[in-house]
Amino acid sequence: MSLETISENRSFGGTQGVYRHKSQATGTEMTFGLFLPEEAQHGRVPVLWYLSGLTCTHENAMSKAAAQEWCAEAGIAIVFPDTSPRGYDVADDEAFDLGKGAGFYVNATQDPWKPHFQMWHYVVHELPELLSDNFAIDRDAMGITGHSMGGHGALTIAMTHPERYKSVSAFAPIANPTESDWGKKQLTAYLGDDRDAWRAHDSTILMTERGFPGEILIDQGSSDQFLDLLKPESLAHAMMARRQPGQFRMQPGYDHSYFFVQSFMADHVMWHAERLI
Amino acid sequence: MSLETISENRSFGGTQGVYRHKSQATGTEMTFGLFLPEEAQHGRVPVLWYLSGLTCTHENAMSKAAAQEWCAEAGIAIVFPDTSPRGYDVADDEAFDLGKGAGFYVNATQDPWKPHFQMWHYVVHELPELLSDNFAIDRDAMGITGHSMGGHGALTIAMTHPERYKSVSAFAPIANPTESDWGKKQLTAYLGDDRDAWRAHDSTILMTERGFPGEILIDQGSSDQFLDLLKPESLAHAMMARRQPGQFRMQPGYDHSYFFVQSFMADHVMWHAERLI
Repeated sequence: MSLETISENRSFGGTQGVYRHKSQATGTEMTFGLFLPEEAQHGRVPVLWYLSGLTCTHENAMSKAAAQEWCAEAGIAIVFPDTSPRGYDVADDEAFDLGKGAGFYVNATQDPWKPHFQMWHYVVHELPELLSDNFAIDRDAMGITGHSMGGHGALTIAMTHPERYKSVSAFAPIANPTESDWGKKQLTAYLGDDRDAWRAHDSTILMTERGFPGEILIDQGSSDQFLDLLKPESLAHAMMARRQPGQFRMQPGYDHSYFFVQSFMADHVMWHAERLI
Repeated sequence: MSLETISENRSFGGTQGVYRHKSQATGTEMTFGLFLPEEAQHGRVPVLWYLSGLTCTHENAMSKAAAQEWCAEAGIAIVFPDTSPRGYDVADDEAFDLGKGAGFYVNATQDPWKPHFQMWHYVVHELPELLSDNFAIDRDAMGITGHSMGGHGALTIAMTHPERYKSVSAFAPIANPTESDWGKKQLTAYLGDDRDAWRAHDSTILMTERGFPGEILIDQGSSDQFLDLLKPESLAHAMMARRQPGQFRMQPGYDHSYFFVQSFMADHVMWHAERLI
């Protein structure tokens, strides 16, 4: 697959790149950010996936999450995929939480979304292969995290494919979308009315049914303006009922912004690094 | 002076706020960002001024420079002023490097800029007083830094008012504006044709004539796309000729972006903290 370099900036001794490629999964061009630490000049390095939330592109976390410093210190790469396909011929909706910027990390089976909204396949299969073919990243040492809709993506992907991800964490994930207005509308649109098809995309359900073989780290701000939509209590209940190893931390006073994400990024990067290196 | 709170987000145990107020200096409303560490709940804390570069508002560095973490660790505040007055009745220019977003930290004496472009007075006098009146910051423990046009502002302000600033540093400053296309146009517009009036706003000249009583830290990327406009060699020559205590670091491979600023923010914050606490 051909890859176009949009930009490369030196960052903490490594390189923060932005690249564009033609995606078979989405049938569109896709843009992603990739930070490679200095160590990647000498061999393959572990890679942390960061999935972003509603309205974001590859760019938000890359610029505002302050992850590069800690990835440089740990010697791991971090990749920032986009949150949906984009382009004039890609279906969209007036709402900010459906369509472009709101792929929800599923493979859509319903029109008009089906032709392009294949973000699960893109993130789990296509982009890892492209990264491995073009950069010094180690596909056998992958962790995954994300924020909000991206936390939902990280948790559901890791629980479905524990053989691919050695570590998982999340910032303020959409934790129980089948019971939330951040979920019911989107899962109906992308996957149809059959609620059975939704179950593979609900972290609370997956936690109840499968869990994750390693420890899980989740941070949630107590002053998050979207607590009613995120439903952290559902996932926390499922984690504890399952005796899932890990920790669910309620951080007093933090909201849903990148100031929250940035405040705990060091903890998350180091959590993954300990499990990947 | 009355102060309007635009937003407050918890960040690294402290608070990242954005506030708006009516400025007498500029005759407009002005918006600024202020991070207060947890320590500010218990008493006044030192404050670092961060002056931003061309096209920036208060928001760029606040979101992208990753300074809050280090200010929280050091227990100091950091303030992000805007780079110019704004509003429908404020003069502007089609170019990105003159008018709004490009105040150059001078007091304009020429029309049409004179009525509002009083950024030197705003940053040096009015905003410190407003901060001291409304927040737990210590006006007797102030440091100043900035990026590009903001590095120019930090250096010229600190060398002019060493009694007000205990520490100074800069990221890729416009170092010799009286000899640069980033400077000659703007100083002509704001201060007029008399080049004598420009001398107070050129770091290389001030370094030659005055220097700074403490050590100075300057970082410059060797791959900066604006090296010909910044003229670091002029300031470095002046520093060394004067035997000015401090260090001018040429950082290999870094460019002019916030990835560069973020990469060395910890060094700068800790440099100031050592001299302020």
